[in-house]
Amino acid sequence: MKLLIVFLILTLSLQKISAQKAELFLKDYGIESVKDATPIVVNALKVCKEKNISKLYFPKGVYHFYPTFAPDRYCAITNNDNGLKRTPFPIIDFHDFEIDANGSEFIFHGKIVPFIIEESTNISVKNLSIDWEEPFDIEGKVVANNQEGKTFDIEVTTPYKVKYERLYLSLERESSPYDTKFGDRFAIGEKNDIEVGQNIIWNPKTMAPYYNTSQYAIAEHGIIATELNKGLIRLEVKAEKMPPIGSVFVSKGAHLSNRLCPAFRVFKSKDILFNNINVHHAGAMGLIVERSENITLDSFNVVLKEGSGRMVTTTADATHFCNVKGKVIIRNCTFENMLDDATNIHGTYVRVNKILDDFTLAVETYHPHQNGYLFAETGDLVKIVNQNTLESKTSNIVLKKVEQINEKITILTFSESIKGKVNEFDGVQNTSWESSALLENNIVRNNRARSFLISTSKEVILRNNYFSSQMSALRITGDLDLWNESGPCENLLIENNTFVDCLYGGKKDHYVIMIDPQYSNEDYMVSKYSKNITIRNNTFKTFDPKIMLAISVDGLIFINNKIFQTNTYPAFSKENEILKIENSINVSIKNNYFKSLDGGKGSVFVDQKSADIYLSEDSVFDRTPN
Amino acid sequence: MKLLIVFLILTLSLQKISAQKAELFLKDYGIESVKDATPIVVNALKVCKEKNISKLYFPKGVYHFYPTFAPDRYCAITNNDNGLKRTPFPIIDFHDFEIDANGSEFIFHGKIVPFIIEESTNISVKNLSIDWEEPFDIEGKVVANNQEGKTFDIEVTTPYKVKYERLYLSLERESSPYDTKFGDRFAIGEKNDIEVGQNIIWNPKTMAPYYNTSQYAIAEHGIIATELNKGLIRLEVKAEKMPPIGSVFVSKGAHLSNRLCPAFRVFKSKDILFNNINVHHAGAMGLIVERSENITLDSFNVVLKEGSGRMVTTTADATHFCNVKGKVIIRNCTFENMLDDATNIHGTYVRVNKILDDFTLAVETYHPHQNGYLFAETGDLVKIVNQNTLESKTSNIVLKKVEQINEKITILTFSESIKGKVNEFDGVQNTSWESSALLENNIVRNNRARSFLISTSKEVILRNNYFSSQMSALRITGDLDLWNESGPCENLLIENNTFVDCLYGGKKDHYVIMIDPQYSNEDYMVSKYSKNITIRNNTFKTFDPKIMLAISVDGLIFINNKIFQTNTYPAFSKENEILKIENSINVSIKNNYFKSLDGGKGSVFVDQKSADIYLSEDSVFDRTPN
Repeated sequence: MKLLIVFLILTLSLQKISAQKAELFLKDYGIESVKDATPIVVNALKVCKEKNISKLYFPKGVYHFYPTFAPDRYCAITNNDNGLKRTPFPIIDFHDFEIDANGSEFIFHGKIVPFIIEESTNISVKNLSIDWEEPFDIEGKVVANNQEGKTFDIEVTTPYKVKYERLYLSLERESSPYDTKFGDRFAIGEKNDIEVGQNIIWNPKTMAPYYNTSQYAIAEHGIIATELNKGLIRLEVKAEKMPPIGSVFVSKGAHLSNRLCPAFRVFKSKDILFNNINVHHAGAMGLIVERSENITLDSFNVVLKEGSGRMVTTTADATHFCNVKGKVIIRNCTFENMLDDATNIHGTYVRVNKILDDFTLAVETYHPHQNGYLFAETGDLVKIVNQNTLESKTSNIVLKKVEQINEKITILTFSESIKGKVNEFDGVQNTSWESSALLENNIVRNNRARSFLISTSKEVILRNNYFSSQMSALRITGDLDLWNESGPCENLLIENNTFVDCLYGGKKDHYVIMIDPQYSNEDYMVSKYSKNITIRNNTFKTFDPKIMLAISVDGLIFINNKIFQTNTYPAFSKENEILKIENSINVSIKNNYFKSLDGGKGSVFVDQKSADIYLSEDSVFDRTPN
Repeated sequence: MKLLIVFLILTLSLQKISAQKAELFLKDYGIESVKDATPIVVNALKVCKEKNISKLYFPKGVYHFYPTFAPDRYCAITNNDNGLKRTPFPIIDFHDFEIDANGSEFIFHGKIVPFIIEESTNISVKNLSIDWEEPFDIEGKVVANNQEGKTFDIEVTTPYKVKYERLYLSLERESSPYDTKFGDRFAIGEKNDIEVGQNIIWNPKTMAPYYNTSQYAIAEHGIIATELNKGLIRLEVKAEKMPPIGSVFVSKGAHLSNRLCPAFRVFKSKDILFNNINVHHAGAMGLIVERSENITLDSFNVVLKEGSGRMVTTTADATHFCNVKGKVIIRNCTFENMLDDATNIHGTYVRVNKILDDFTLAVETYHPHQNGYLFAETGDLVKIVNQNTLESKTSNIVLKKVEQINEKITILTFSESIKGKVNEFDGVQNTSWESSALLENNIVRNNRARSFLISTSKEVILRNNYFSSQMSALRITGDLDLWNESGPCENLLIENNTFVDCLYGGKKDHYVIMIDPQYSNEDYMVSKYSKNITIRNNTFKTFDPKIMLAISVDGLIFINNKIFQTNTYPAFSKENEILKIENSINVSIKNNYFKSLDGGKGSVFVDQKSADIYLSEDSVFDRTPN
């Protein structure tokens, strides 16, 4: 159907909608017969806004969304790639608004962000799935390998190009006579052809990363490619070990070009609900929420589409919450096959670039994925944090003024003198924007990285979840290093969860649960970063002994947990060190159950910086002498 | 000096400036003693705006500008690379304002745009030079070559990196502990390290492109690099012929990453004067003016800095005017050693993506350098142009409404029906935004491309200029092909200019003056594109016979010109075909002087589509029979 008709219908419909009518049915707009649903939806949203309509309904169907006629806006999206983003759902400054797609399938084409929700309140999005016609990764079955020559051959069915001795994933783009003639000339510069970069070896039998996939780690730059036949590519790589025949080489674009298109972007919004949504793929995160308040995910799943044959869902985290306050609720969700974590709830420390006067700091975000990050606004509370020990150097101080200079630098004016309390490169933490969280009845499995990362001092409950990630299931951290992710946990309850054979990726020194603030030097590990963490009534089924690493915790209870060692894979660790406690105080370990493969006891390592460690007399663990 | 002091001084100065005081002296702001002049200038500009100050003076000196504290804004800059641009001179919404730097040298560091002038009127910028501490290109002297192995070795003194078997130019960036630790990891993604791409071979003896440099053309992608020693790099290339020892390999970053930082960006402004300015380098164009009116350049030079040892000034055009109306005046300027043209005055055709109804078109800009291009606003006059013949299909029609959807697509609503007058992929030309121009007493030499490109129907006079470019001196064109550059010339006078040994780069079928609208197929060459072109009293000193190609001109006078053939280089053309006339009418060629090397006459080729060609009986040219 021509756009002409679309516009006519919309114009006519505009007349028909009375101020009283609070719902808009896209069926009436002819959406079922168009090739590209974008213009109809964009215009329907305009109508909804103008007429104060509170519900937008899709008739159940399959809808395709192309970027050609999608409006764009410049978005700085934390932990994703910034830039001009096109979207068919520009939910900007909407209030009390619901989108119900009635179980429809949304198929996206090329570089497009399905939903951008900004400056909005009380928004619900329901009953839809999101997929892309062509993915943002290359998946290629390994059909030959040559350990000596450091090559292996892959069969690729996803769109790709081999040129200049390199392999590119090729995104879908609008066809036109111009594109036919000149498109290839611009494809790399326009990031339509993106050189493959970060990669991992997948196992199509388990539909998960290969056991000990770390041993196949391939340097992400400088992969040399030769097209042997259409769809058959030989890769010459820098790696210790070639991937096995039958495995699947999975690679997304090079770093900083592989998080272009999250499925949902939420920014400066409040009271947002996502319900009954399946994200089958995204060229970045499934959901990224930033500087927002009260977000609920109920059956927001990131899952493979049955029959798609794909190994991967999102090319980054399933969900991610940064600078969020109020409460995050994630329940009844399945997160599988992502190339990164299931969720990460944290703040971001900025770092002091220059001390301008006793009240004023120029602060900087360093990581490129934090370019343009909105750290704070006037009136927010912040603390200064020691760059080495991660200790707070001040209590909360109100910001009197905040001026964002450019995508890196912000000038913060404090309401009281900070003279003598700050050094260049110290961190600054925003304590106004931390959220409590309830994460329950979720499943995480078969993804590249962790399940949940939690960094917030507010109350967090993780309950009745199932975890099976190739790295740690849970990571509780904070750093003033690479990522500068902020927020110690100070009230965390982990209960009734089941952890099944995590850690199978083979990364060294990982534990199923890692509580590990990051210090540049062990000498700086002196103060306590986290507080009040309770881990109780959980079940761990694990082929590798390492259950928990706890660093710098004041108040840790590990109680009533059951640990069953399995023989699913060979263990990486030879020693049965189950728990490792460093620089912690007030730790209680009791009433746990432990069934090892060899019938022996496990052990608990406690370092010399720790004190007040209670290990019950009848413990299933021996304390390693130190 | 600390920023602290800067801010204090500015605050104090704010008090001192009375409403009557119309001038601000940066000497009073301590600008002479700071390492980074950016914060002082940015804040001084704020003061100027707040206090309605009309002149900003620099004490004569050398000032360094770093991007760290420069404000940024997202700029879509036609014919350059879009993005967030940082600038110490955000001249946004200024009126009746002058900047006089009293002969100061401005040195820029890294990715920064010296001047952004937008939405401003009556602005003068005077008496300064612009250079970069580290350039946006790599220049390497060829010290060895191997024709069989397709390699050559270069000695490079500009910052570079060799990694992943590729050569990158490495831009200056802020140092910090973070950058020291992680900067290299992000450098490619952040475009701090940019793979070399477009390239050319320079001759350090002539300080110009090598004679017949085309024969050394190197494919811009897939250059394989090995660092033999620090500063000594072997390049393995796809090229017919290796560059000679002693020549200089010049390369900027890959296409679409090599026009990041023009020296001056002017947008939506009026009555702008640049006087006594030397641009020694820029990582894009020297000046790009867009959607503006009445621009004067008087002694705005793009010239090498004495003693710098560099081969190249700007990595793109010296100056460029697109969508400009009123008058462009360029006088007393020297433009040398650019990697592109000295100027280009043109409009940009958009193309019809979809016909929405009898009044409405969705139009598109296709070339990525036209992403975000502001083609028109409500009230502009436009014409529809046949995509094949380049003929106007309508007279001027007023645009009733213009809606920019995204960086490619704009919806145009016409004030009258265009039913039957338009096809998909036709062009649309904005005739409201064309400028007249006077270009006199300028010198263009030693640059990679052409001298002047003129595409505007308004009166243009090119007078008393000196041209010595390696391609054509003048190009008068228009296309609905790669660039979609619009505007037939309809009133062009070229007089009293001197053309010296142009065309030495060796591109086939180039003429010193080319009037060549571009057709996809010779069958479409039927209507007359250009009108009323007079070429008189010029002197051509030329080693190659080809003086003028004229295609599709109605009204061409070639009179009183003197042509002296030289032996500066071997001629590329064997035949003495001086003028070539195709599909033209009303052409008069008379009273010219011709001195060939062999004493013979030159010839004029006239094709069968041409008519009313007057060649005086005593002509120095023979007409080639056809």
